[in-house]
Amino acid sequence: MSRQVDIPSLVEQARAGRPRAVARLISMVEDAHPALREVMAALAPHTGHAHVIGVTGSPGVGKSTSTNALVTALRQRDLRVGVLAVDPSSPFSGGALLGDRIRMSDHVLDPQVYIRSMASRGHLGGLSWTTPQALRVLDAAGCDVVLVETVGVGQSEVEVVGLADTTIVLLAPGMGDGIQAAKAGILEIGDVFVVNKADRDGADNTVRDIRHMISLGDRTEAGLWRPPVLKTVAHRHEGVDEVVEAFDKHVAWMTDRGVLRQRRLKRATDEIESIVIKNLRERMGDLRGDHGMEALAAAVVDGRSDPYAAADQVIGDLT
Amino acid sequence: MSRQVDIPSLVEQARAGRPRAVARLISMVEDAHPALREVMAALAPHTGHAHVIGVTGSPGVGKSTSTNALVTALRQRDLRVGVLAVDPSSPFSGGALLGDRIRMSDHVLDPQVYIRSMASRGHLGGLSWTTPQALRVLDAAGCDVVLVETVGVGQSEVEVVGLADTTIVLLAPGMGDGIQAAKAGILEIGDVFVVNKADRDGADNTVRDIRHMISLGDRTEAGLWRPPVLKTVAHRHEGVDEVVEAFDKHVAWMTDRGVLRQRRLKRATDEIESIVIKNLRERMGDLRGDHGMEALAAAVVDGRSDPYAAADQVIGDLT
Repeated sequence: MSRQVDIPSLVEQARAGRPRAVARLISMVEDAHPALREVMAALAPHTGHAHVIGVTGSPGVGKSTSTNALVTALRQRDLRVGVLAVDPSSPFSGGALLGDRIRMSDHVLDPQVYIRSMASRGHLGGLSWTTPQALRVLDAAGCDVVLVETVGVGQSEVEVVGLADTTIVLLAPGMGDGIQAAKAGILEIGDVFVVNKADRDGADNTVRDIRHMISLGDRTEAGLWRPPVLKTVAHRHEGVDEVVEAFDKHVAWMTDRGVLRQRRLKRATDEIESIVIKNLRERMGDLRGDHGMEALAAAVVDGRSDPYAAADQVIGDLT
Repeated sequence: MSRQVDIPSLVEQARAGRPRAVARLISMVEDAHPALREVMAALAPHTGHAHVIGVTGSPGVGKSTSTNALVTALRQRDLRVGVLAVDPSSPFSGGALLGDRIRMSDHVLDPQVYIRSMASRGHLGGLSWTTPQALRVLDAAGCDVVLVETVGVGQSEVEVVGLADTTIVLLAPGMGDGIQAAKAGILEIGDVFVVNKADRDGADNTVRDIRHMISLGDRTEAGLWRPPVLKTVAHRHEGVDEVVEAFDKHVAWMTDRGVLRQRRLKRATDEIESIVIKNLRERMGDLRGDHGMEALAAAVVDGRSDPYAAADQVIGDLT
């Protein structure tokens, strides 16, 4: 890859909404391109506009269909929409390294919709490293809303909360989703709950379960946001406008109370810290090398040293 | 808590197998006690003996019963056994902060068995920070085998692999466990697979599923370990000796090929790095404070700075 990139021109094209320029910038994020810091400096004045919505849920709840329906609803409001799909099982994935626009049935030809899949694992620090910077690109490119779609299993739904202004948790009737949600800590991260496939048996039970579990904390008295629990049939676009209205209400609620800014400050702090840690890890490698680190590790394994003494040596090199 | 701890005496008592001393040392790990580095230096010459076995699996497969049965089998060989339960849903949990010996039905009165639950979340860096140091304590205390039991959901089973010499993955018949295992990446982490509750319908199918999925990689040709797939009925102690024999074979296989040392070097490297990063994070907080970091984050949120420029300022303070 050439280092001779005309960053100001690329940023200008991305701001004008040219998909190829946006794709190129996100590829630079994924590749940890040497010019990335110049890119981020050029983007900075143009960021802060986009509303970031995390969309998470277990496999099988209809995340892709729901995301597709949400994009339609947002486009009906004439908003520019970005979609980052960080779910490795998503039908959107596969374009991560090619940087192509990829298939999302209803929106693939709409120039006001930018869709991108991201490699979520084993990629230079993963979700926590690349996604915030990709969000910055879409934000500066004039997206009014960016949907970050991630599979709600394990660590990823916790990470998406750190990235999003508003987090939507998708569920489906049956399958003991209520209990699963409680186990996964998913009740604590949702700002809006959506029971998709609401034409199936048991939808009302799932809504009731979730409402019941949410109210346990008695959020109203504590002055906390009370997450609505909505029903959709995403593939027929039923109930989707109500979900968008719930986002609006959540943003207004957060803005009134300074919560939106607090969330964004937290997000920026995490982003700064992750760059610092990544940088220091690289210095560790540069200064000491794999071989030098192995010598320290060998001393620990052999009982000639302990991890603290070894860590002191590394820190001494760094600082 | 007093800082006046007689570390040499405490380490001496732990090496003699005195449960209270072992408990005290692990509590110091959990509390990030100021004398911890002195403890680790004193323990270092006595480490490297214990075989660390990770035990993981989804809820409901019988992890606690299996761990209990494994301890019985290991005790019949007259081995000293440690158990670290880092599963928050484990019946062993609850003693994490009290530091007490806790109930494990068959072994609670056996002085050659040391059982300890660990708080796995939200605790000064979590599993990756406290568990390796707790392992060091049990290793130096003369345990021949330490079983690290963790729930196989999300990130934790990946972490336990980093800690263990041998990882056992527990499954149960039915429940689509094969597919679940494949999804969770559990096939890649298991050195020994055990289908527990093998008296139930479908056990042979589950064994076949797992064997089929393992053989896809054609491990023999690649010179890799071929994980055995065994059946147990842990609550009746059926098949448990075969599991212990599989561990023995795995250790012998790894020792012959230098794999055991490589795993331990990797473990020590991770441990050193996590201490370095923790230390640098603390320095970040000390140097800049929450308030100073918030000012940097605010500049990023307001578009006056970007995360790289902000990170440079933090790194400049540190180094």
